[in-house]
Amino acid sequence: MTADFAFEITARNGRARRGRMQLAHGVVDTPAFMPVGTRGAVKGITMAQLNDLGASIMLSNTYHLHVRPGDESIARAGGLHAFAGWTKPILTDSGGFQVFSLSGRRKLSEEGVVFQSHLDGSDHFLSPEVAADIQARLGSDIAMVFDECTAWPVTHEEAGAAMQRTLRWARRARDRFQALGDGRVPDLPRATPGQAQFGIIQGSTFKDLRDASVAGTIAVGFEGYAIGGLSVGEPSEAMYDIAGHTAEQLPEASPRYLMGAGTPVDLLEAVARGIDMFDCVLPTRNARNGQLFTRRGPISIKNARYADDLAPPDPDCTCPTCRAHSRAYLRHLFQAGEMASGILNTVHNLHFYLDTMAGIRKAIEFGIYEEFMKAFLQTYSEANQ
Amino acid sequence: MTADFAFEITARNGRARRGRMQLAHGVVDTPAFMPVGTRGAVKGITMAQLNDLGASIMLSNTYHLHVRPGDESIARAGGLHAFAGWTKPILTDSGGFQVFSLSGRRKLSEEGVVFQSHLDGSDHFLSPEVAADIQARLGSDIAMVFDECTAWPVTHEEAGAAMQRTLRWARRARDRFQALGDGRVPDLPRATPGQAQFGIIQGSTFKDLRDASVAGTIAVGFEGYAIGGLSVGEPSEAMYDIAGHTAEQLPEASPRYLMGAGTPVDLLEAVARGIDMFDCVLPTRNARNGQLFTRRGPISIKNARYADDLAPPDPDCTCPTCRAHSRAYLRHLFQAGEMASGILNTVHNLHFYLDTMAGIRKAIEFGIYEEFMKAFLQTYSEANQ
Repeated sequence: MTADFAFEITARNGRARRGRMQLAHGVVDTPAFMPVGTRGAVKGITMAQLNDLGASIMLSNTYHLHVRPGDESIARAGGLHAFAGWTKPILTDSGGFQVFSLSGRRKLSEEGVVFQSHLDGSDHFLSPEVAADIQARLGSDIAMVFDECTAWPVTHEEAGAAMQRTLRWARRARDRFQALGDGRVPDLPRATPGQAQFGIIQGSTFKDLRDASVAGTIAVGFEGYAIGGLSVGEPSEAMYDIAGHTAEQLPEASPRYLMGAGTPVDLLEAVARGIDMFDCVLPTRNARNGQLFTRRGPISIKNARYADDLAPPDPDCTCPTCRAHSRAYLRHLFQAGEMASGILNTVHNLHFYLDTMAGIRKAIEFGIYEEFMKAFLQTYSEANQ
Repeated sequence: MTADFAFEITARNGRARRGRMQLAHGVVDTPAFMPVGTRGAVKGITMAQLNDLGASIMLSNTYHLHVRPGDESIARAGGLHAFAGWTKPILTDSGGFQVFSLSGRRKLSEEGVVFQSHLDGSDHFLSPEVAADIQARLGSDIAMVFDECTAWPVTHEEAGAAMQRTLRWARRARDRFQALGDGRVPDLPRATPGQAQFGIIQGSTFKDLRDASVAGTIAVGFEGYAIGGLSVGEPSEAMYDIAGHTAEQLPEASPRYLMGAGTPVDLLEAVARGIDMFDCVLPTRNARNGQLFTRRGPISIKNARYADDLAPPDPDCTCPTCRAHSRAYLRHLFQAGEMASGILNTVHNLHFYLDTMAGIRKAIEFGIYEEFMKAFLQTYSEANQ
């Protein structure tokens, strides 16, 4: 275990957990949502605005930062925190998801993956060791192991092979992580000495594969455990079912992170099944496309019906956007293509996600999570605006 | 005169003036720079950010707001202040500049101008009266008369004809403005009862035409006077010369506004010649293109030399961007096409412009404007980064 890492469960309600995760750069109250800052910036806002929103942790992408501006450059700046001007915790993914889903040409071997940069076509190599090294240079608070993520649907055989490879890579990733932590890798000091590392459970929607993945990953041993390979196109019910089935077998004392999820409903359903951490591009991406999440369901601000609507986007919301601006103004900004449209919509959507997580945490503390979820879902599905 | 309007000169230094302009929505200290919020939003930032920067007045465009979302719609929202969520003063131009310079097809007559919207090709009509009516609906603190702005270069004959037409239109604009103020226009209450109106001096770079324009415009009588038809491509020296020549003849007790200027150097030179107000898209537009104004001259943040430069954009700057971020990070954001690039650069450039104006005001108060200007220009031209 890393000295700077600690996780404590402070309340339970059914399978939902209220926790407190101590990381090198601060405390994260769980269940937590991590805004996505792919390239060291959350799309649509500045770090100051992200901080004002009360985000306690940001996710950044190892693959994107490796190809530009380069992890060596970020290391020279003192790590990603210093480079981006973000003082709170950061989780970095390992690049596995990007290499397997975004990149065009790649060559996979047991050693790792050779792939071409989406920017200039130049060759790059990622492996469990290289991904650990890059994340040591970035200096994230939580580093993820390099995994092989499968698409959905996938055959049992393919999913099994990817899961087994991910297990073998988990061992190598942990060995490298520990070598880095012990100072056994010359000329590669960690930008964040107290970095933690999470393993990733694979196995697609096959429960037997998930079971084997959990057993093998726990055997290696990590500070926390992520559930990968979900939120990749499978039906919601399958995602909830597999997430819950997997979470049940993970160590009670470790945080559980459902990668890439999801909608507000996904978050509520997953928390009910024992998940502690989330990341998703939905609030930021949809903001730029004019979709605003509200307590009564999402609305499309470009709709002509809002042209003279002087109500705030979400009358129950206390965010800076809803306090200052009407739907009519936000529609105008979207129609006019003003940058302020993306900024204000992003502020609102991230506030909605973070505020929903705060509500979830309170509900678990008060022992009313089931009622909270029921009320939320009922209001959210009214779609009566 | 409008009851809510007052202008007081509190200090002089040579021909430079330090003033205080009382408008319906608050006080503007002059010399003042007005950030450009063409469509009711300053490109790149939110109203909250504009307010945090300490801007005391914003400029918006009558033409753009008339064609989208429409001044009737904005009137229903309670005027532009309420619509945009901006509580401080607003100056609206008259649409003349846009109609004469931006629009493709237009038909000019003594009555006004028929033109086609740049959005959908639909026909619109602007005249001195219509422009006054639109600005009454928008409810700006300062409305501008509808003028005929000439390009540069232009013949003496053409410039003279446009200037004479602008004078005839000034009379009609003032009559309509007063009728609106007296409640003599049915069903068109001003969104801002205490609105003021500025006349516009034309005449291109011909001093005899400027003299005639000043005399005629003063004869009509306005709360303030703008110098139009400059900053349209003429050499800087011609702009300074004509601005100074014109300003000298304008009433001492009224504010003087040099439309569309300019670079930081333009602002300093014009203040030295008695100008009180400015607007320009340079700080915001150049921000989005990666140019940052600094005390040592402008820098292009996309330059590869900044890839590992951990210094702030302007080491002498106290803006939120310079306090939190390095040139290396800002270069990365620009290269990656992140929205945060435009936001952070805009915040810095507007802060630079507004801070420069604050320095100008202090220097006039202290009676050291000449020394201030000399020191500024010397540092600004070092270009030694």
